[in-house]
Amino acid sequence: MTGPTRRSALRRKRERGSYDRETIYAILDEALICHVGFGDGESVFVVPTIHARVGDLLYLHGAAANHMLERLGSGAELCVTVTLVDGLVFARSAFHHSVNYRSVMVFGTASTVVDPEEKRAAVLAIVDHVAKGRTADARPPSEIELRATTVVRVPLGEASAKTRTGPPIEESEDLDLRIWAGEVPLETRAMEPVPAPGLPEEVEVPSYVRWYPQRQVGPPDAGAGSRRHQSRPAPGG
Amino acid sequence: MTGPTRRSALRRKRERGSYDRETIYAILDEALICHVGFGDGESVFVVPTIHARVGDLLYLHGAAANHMLERLGSGAELCVTVTLVDGLVFARSAFHHSVNYRSVMVFGTASTVVDPEEKRAAVLAIVDHVAKGRTADARPPSEIELRATTVVRVPLGEASAKTRTGPPIEESEDLDLRIWAGEVPLETRAMEPVPAPGLPEEVEVPSYVRWYPQRQVGPPDAGAGSRRHQSRPAPGG
Repeated sequence: MTGPTRRSALRRKRERGSYDRETIYAILDEALICHVGFGDGESVFVVPTIHARVGDLLYLHGAAANHMLERLGSGAELCVTVTLVDGLVFARSAFHHSVNYRSVMVFGTASTVVDPEEKRAAVLAIVDHVAKGRTADARPPSEIELRATTVVRVPLGEASAKTRTGPPIEESEDLDLRIWAGEVPLETRAMEPVPAPGLPEEVEVPSYVRWYPQRQVGPPDAGAGSRRHQSRPAPGG
Repeated sequence: MTGPTRRSALRRKRERGSYDRETIYAILDEALICHVGFGDGESVFVVPTIHARVGDLLYLHGAAANHMLERLGSGAELCVTVTLVDGLVFARSAFHHSVNYRSVMVFGTASTVVDPEEKRAAVLAIVDHVAKGRTADARPPSEIELRATTVVRVPLGEASAKTRTGPPIEESEDLDLRIWAGEVPLETRAMEPVPAPGLPEEVEVPSYVRWYPQRQVGPPDAGAGSRRHQSRPAPGG
């Protein structure tokens, strides 16, 4: 566990913050995508992308000619933020409306992954981040495909989490108003899978697709589900 | 409609991009939250927050002492990005896995809203962005609450949208592999509303809460639903 630095120190609503590794890892693992912020000396860019966490590292990837990865590879300061919106909070007053969420901010710099084995493992971790188990089935990347891909590594040393849960906070004089108040929990659900055009009917839908609403998350080779997405055995499995 | 600038010009996968106002507005209106990127001369920050669009302006708000709003109010370059993840794309090859999404990036600078009427309207637009119609029910902000809030305005002149839809793109030699491929569409759903502790039972659940899965989105005073969230009349209404 790393303590706060100047920029990762929580500014507002500190009681909602945490530097606990387990909390930070669980949020990073559950979030499908992250938003990566970086500058080019003139402008700031915030780019959505998929990530994967392996131990205390976050991996990002993209095409070799990708602008973001070029900037990150040359040592640009970055901030990676992931946000899970867990619910909408309705207060009796407009002022106290809020959102229940879990978010992580990571500060630092990235470095380009050069070692071919680390690069291959990172690319596969990104596929498994989205659907745990998929890399056991998918055709692995070729040498040409790996060369066409850039991967960068972001250390998680300077990360913090922030969370809001629970009901609205209200002014006591508002409590008697006859206005509905409470929380509307939100969840991300998978709908019926759509097979690719021309896919032979006898190709079975794998469990990580069929059971997507109960997406398994977590580091590679760990089967534990997160708080919200409990792992559930596939039928007959 | 505004054309591309140096930084809003689409770099990669240009065929997925658009500068069309209607496309940009629909994505901004549907996204519950945005990620705001800005620098302080040393570090970059990416902060999740709620937004509201009114015409060709985006409003952001927060506590008067908010670090982000202080930076934005002093003219820091910003990038606001919203991303809707519509589905996971499974290709036969690990390399061609992808995500179906709709995103918008906005570049520019913000200015602090000083006019009390614009400020009040912006704060209410942010509440209605999350649940259209809520401001007709909620207790309006007091003068003290408005003074405790900072609102900034971001012009949408320099914005672009990027979208991916449809099945995986594959190498032709992979098409005969007996590996499942296709799309898993995702949606954000509301679960059963949780009333605030102590809420009298006779306080009715309003339609914008009961019908949240069919969230109405769009500019203030317009009833049109978006592509994915069609408006639907409340029962008996």
